[in-house]
Amino acid sequence: MVRVGILGATGYTALELIKILLRHPGVEITTLTSRQEGNPHVTAIHPQLMGRLDVNLEDLAPETVAARTECAFSCLPHATSAAMVMKMLETDVRVVDFSADYRLLDADTYAKWYGHKHPDPDRLGNTVYGLPELFGSKIPDAQLIANPGCYTSTSILALAPLLSGGLIESKGIIIDAKSGISGAGRSPKLTTLYPECNESLSAYAVGRHRHTPEIEQILAISSGQDVEVIFTPHLVPMDRGILCTIYATPTTEATEDQLLDAMRSFYADKPFVRVVDHLPATKDVSGTNFCDMTVRLVKGRVIVLSCTDNLIKGASGVAVQNFNLMHEFDETTALL
Amino acid sequence: MVRVGILGATGYTALELIKILLRHPGVEITTLTSRQEGNPHVTAIHPQLMGRLDVNLEDLAPETVAARTECAFSCLPHATSAAMVMKMLETDVRVVDFSADYRLLDADTYAKWYGHKHPDPDRLGNTVYGLPELFGSKIPDAQLIANPGCYTSTSILALAPLLSGGLIESKGIIIDAKSGISGAGRSPKLTTLYPECNESLSAYAVGRHRHTPEIEQILAISSGQDVEVIFTPHLVPMDRGILCTIYATPTTEATEDQLLDAMRSFYADKPFVRVVDHLPATKDVSGTNFCDMTVRLVKGRVIVLSCTDNLIKGASGVAVQNFNLMHEFDETTALL
Amino acid sequence: MVRVGILGATGYTALELIKILLRHPGVEITTLTSRQEGNPHVTAIHPQLMGRLDVNLEDLAPETVAARTECAFSCLPHATSAAMVMKMLETDVRVVDFSADYRLLDADTYAKWYGHKHPDPDRLGNTVYGLPELFGSKIPDAQLIANPGCYTSTSILALAPLLSGGLIESKGIIIDAKSGISGAGRSPKLTTLYPECNESLSAYAVGRHRHTPEIEQILAISSGQDVEVIFTPHLVPMDRGILCTIYATPTTEATEDQLLDAMRSFYADKPFVRVVDHLPATKDVSGTNFCDMTVRLVKGRVIVLSCTDNLIKGASGVAVQNFNLMHEFDETTALL
Amino acid sequence: MVRVGILGATGYTALELIKILLRHPGVEITTLTSRQEGNPHVTAIHPQLMGRLDVNLEDLAPETVAARTECAFSCLPHATSAAMVMKMLETDVRVVDFSADYRLLDADTYAKWYGHKHPDPDRLGNTVYGLPELFGSKIPDAQLIANPGCYTSTSILALAPLLSGGLIESKGIIIDAKSGISGAGRSPKLTTLYPECNESLSAYAVGRHRHTPEIEQILAISSGQDVEVIFTPHLVPMDRGILCTIYATPTTEATEDQLLDAMRSFYADKPFVRVVDHLPATKDVSGTNFCDMTVRLVKGRVIVLSCTDNLIKGASGVAVQNFNLMHEFDETTALL
Repeated sequence: MVRVGILGATGYTALELIKILLRHPGVEITTLTSRQEGNPHVTAIHPQLMGRLDVNLEDLAPETVAARTECAFSCLPHATSAAMVMKMLETDVRVVDFSADYRLLDADTYAKWYGHKHPDPDRLGNTVYGLPELFGSKIPDAQLIANPGCYTSTSILALAPLLSGGLIESKGIIIDAKSGISGAGRSPKLTTLYPECNESLSAYAVGRHRHTPEIEQILAISSGQDVEVIFTPHLVPMDRGILCTIYATPTTEATEDQLLDAMRSFYADKPFVRVVDHLPATKDVSGTNFCDMTVRLVKGRVIVLSCTDNLIKGASGVAVQNFNLMHEFDETTALL
Repeated sequence: MVRVGILGATGYTALELIKILLRHPGVEITTLTSRQEGNPHVTAIHPQLMGRLDVNLEDLAPETVAARTECAFSCLPHATSAAMVMKMLETDVRVVDFSADYRLLDADTYAKWYGHKHPDPDRLGNTVYGLPELFGSKIPDAQLIANPGCYTSTSILALAPLLSGGLIESKGIIIDAKSGISGAGRSPKLTTLYPECNESLSAYAVGRHRHTPEIEQILAISSGQDVEVIFTPHLVPMDRGILCTIYATPTTEATEDQLLDAMRSFYADKPFVRVVDHLPATKDVSGTNFCDMTVRLVKGRVIVLSCTDNLIKGASGVAVQNFNLMHEFDETTALL
Repeated sequence: MVRVGILGATGYTALELIKILLRHPGVEITTLTSRQEGNPHVTAIHPQLMGRLDVNLEDLAPETVAARTECAFSCLPHATSAAMVMKMLETDVRVVDFSADYRLLDADTYAKWYGHKHPDPDRLGNTVYGLPELFGSKIPDAQLIANPGCYTSTSILALAPLLSGGLIESKGIIIDAKSGISGAGRSPKLTTLYPECNESLSAYAVGRHRHTPEIEQILAISSGQDVEVIFTPHLVPMDRGILCTIYATPTTEATEDQLLDAMRSFYADKPFVRVVDHLPATKDVSGTNFCDMTVRLVKGRVIVLSCTDNLIKGASGVAVQNFNLMHEFDETTALL
Repeated sequence: MVRVGILGATGYTALELIKILLRHPGVEITTLTSRQEGNPHVTAIHPQLMGRLDVNLEDLAPETVAARTECAFSCLPHATSAAMVMKMLETDVRVVDFSADYRLLDADTYAKWYGHKHPDPDRLGNTVYGLPELFGSKIPDAQLIANPGCYTSTSILALAPLLSGGLIESKGIIIDAKSGISGAGRSPKLTTLYPECNESLSAYAVGRHRHTPEIEQILAISSGQDVEVIFTPHLVPMDRGILCTIYATPTTEATEDQLLDAMRSFYADKPFVRVVDHLPATKDVSGTNFCDMTVRLVKGRVIVLSCTDNLIKGASGVAVQNFNLMHEFDETTALL
């Protein structure tokens, strides 16, 4: 049994992570942290877990977490996460970091998009990006995994086959992305209050969303060319689910079927990507670790549609997928 | 034109009130108050009002509001409201108070349920309760109107005909009430965050909801007997709407049709109560000032079903209905 | 591996059943039936199952299903189900019937509530009702299990401890029940069209819902006394979840804590009932086989609140729980 | 009073139309048609209208409707609508046709997209397209108005200022459109069943939606150049609202502010278009006849965001706006 801890265990990704790990035959959850006063029992925060898990949330130093666990998942916000993680990495504990802190390749881009200096800049560029479909070979030996963002992985998985195959131009890509509200986290704020976002739909952070450089950098690495995307996120009145509708310019005369074939080949042995003929719906992947995708050719444009459950394949599911690879479990353990 | 002001203009009831008043041919909105810093324009708070209303929200003393208006609607929270209202009533401005401050009949009950001493106890018992269907004759001459609670009016309107007609027992009444989320207000809190209450349903404040004494006291006045209710509110994942399912014990052999007739007679000349044969749905009254209701007899029990839009008939619509009666407009002005 | 078939595999309960069975280490799904033309692949009906299950839906005779399976789950509508099931029972296949056909105790009650003669009346009164918390000892040896209705099990589980303990009166019980829309099935109809039921709330079938006699008869058996309930179902705008708010008259001076204790004792060794102190929310049990419940004493009335996921504990989850008991798997297999 | 009739009065656009017309001081609704058996009262179909309107739905010949009304709104489906409308136009009744039948400019395009020959081809190309912001001068004298589609008007209003001003290229425009479910109509079908589309999001009819040629043709007329768009509609789990996120290539060095200014100038005297600085949300226009829009420049791309209530500005509101212009009422009558 691998002893596991979760840093910042009060939010939605932590809850999903716990639910998945409770199904995992090789995991024991020993440690949950939070700054909540009074060390509340996990079921006081997540009543869904009544009778499932008997652990209190504690405000612990990184050394303590490291001592109690072999693998820690950090669900802390950016900056806070790196501050904890860099200390834990001094031990031999392994870490899957849900925050954006180790996803970008350089400290300048980080500072530009996150508004503060990176506390641990040397690890940028050297950290394994935890998207197993693209970087699976590097994951087993990594001590630290930068777990991808939800919009990011849904976008990258859709574009990687076509970019790597040279089938679309790497500039001028438009990603029109739509997400359920859980992606905005569990901190009360006006914009995600029920009566504000129910029965409403809007774009936000147009041209300024922090997943933009992450998408561009990771696709550049995976496809070996500079990539430029316009990324427009929208908030949709539903709990969970991301749909990316992506517009790109083809570089070849490839037909729709050939594009589909290229996607199918690229993901031939990947258990969690499903290239489908129909137009995918977020409901088809809700509660699962799948990314469903398809492609259309319309008036000389390539349109790729991809969807995931933002809390599972977009966060906690892929984290366990990474964990499985790190700890020599079957990649799909606890995820089907 | 009656010059009108709204105290506490940032919330959902204030927004609905403004939207109704903008349709009113005899009203000019001159004043909006809020403690928001920087005196924001109303459209910064309510973008729905772009191009409709050009007023800033100001942090004003009660005397200033009174000087600028002939009628003020207070959408302030309880306690805060009475503190403002009691000062305004020293002038000749008229006030419709949305808070619970002047709804109860005595200071002891108020202190027990609201947890603090009433700042203006002498007006309790002397204030007109603004439910025009029951107290319409007293409204035209009132300086102060206690605008009813949303659960309260939906419950009272359903029960008044049967209690006043002696058709049901006044004790042991069960009100199983269900409300949309807007009833919980516009202050960000965890319980009304979208991912918390979407796709969920629960009871809350069982046996402890503050509308309980209000229902009992007003029904006691209107029917001339002590009334005791068990009131169980539930939060339903929708923006607006209240449905009360009420269980009572009949005192007579009256048939279902006779009960329906009693309700129809009671509300014969009331423009905003619709006694219907079918089971009413909140969608039928959404965005309207109507209260739809019906009655069933099941195994010797009377079941009354009533519904309203909690923000309209449950708050801002009935407030304008009161305003119309106070200022000699037709009762339905701006409300159909 | 137990070879399993599902009759009527196009609906929501069948989909949930398949998803649970795919996690079951001792099950092979060999057969799915439907009257859909052209023997569609299961993923044409349920795209969620892409890559998970490779079976076509066929229009099969009961004998064929019996020959291919050791256990069949019938998700067919009432009447249609019994017609199939009674023929299958002539073989040694075992059956879990989701329909209401074998839940009632006598053919007269069935005819009265379902409007037609029962095709297999001799089995009424002799069939095991598949609520393992009450009838667990009879399930292992049963050839046929009548799988409970969703409202029914949520109501019965809430009331059984108090009725069996003699803590509440068995007459005059009021069950105010609220359900998500999936309970109404997957056949297109106006009443469950999205724009009809979204942002709306209403009661339906007041005094006439077919789960009423089922609740009364099963509670009578389990508690050894005549039971009479008033059952009022409501449709709530959410996919899944049932909350029952139940009002009963206490027979003793038992305190709230004593009532809670009685419930906890009753379900001491039952893995899927959680007696909680807080007010349960349907979200806490969504996607799980749990029934969460609590009890309150208000003004001399007992209020029991219970909730389930109508598709899991209310249908497919309890079916697998029954299956586990029938086939000597651990009761929780595939359900946690 | 203008005597008004509505053909096909059972759907959502007809209901919204009735609700608006009931507020209109110059309208009497004399006639409602439907093929429903038994001439049901309008409140049997639309219980929201209880006490508001006392008219039965009848299955009437076009001549009868023409005789009873001065203006008829047709909410019939395409093909059915033209068959009725062409006969009514032989009288002097005026018609606002909600269907697509008279929106396109030529019979060939119609046949290609709608799959059948147009029954009244000579009127194509000669019918006034009822978007008052663009064709307001032609509306007062028209006997027949082709009321725009909901996606169409939301898209056209967003693009017209930039295309007419020569600020964006007229080819390669991408319209990523998202709509609430009411846009799919009130006929029960699986795709719009609550549990199918709640908590889900997907694209549909990619590259094949019938509003595509309508957008291209009307924008071509209004801007005097060929226009080509890629139109991708999505279904969003909410009752109403459309948001179009539109990507275009600028032709000039115009700044974001200059683009906003161009939009503001274009709509300077138009009461129902609001060019806003913030990112518009569908909730801001829900229940109103407004179209809110803004523009952003991102990485050398123009992004226009526009939203409407699909049932109001996208259907019934603009119809009344047309009616007002046809019958010399103020353009905003009954619409604010």
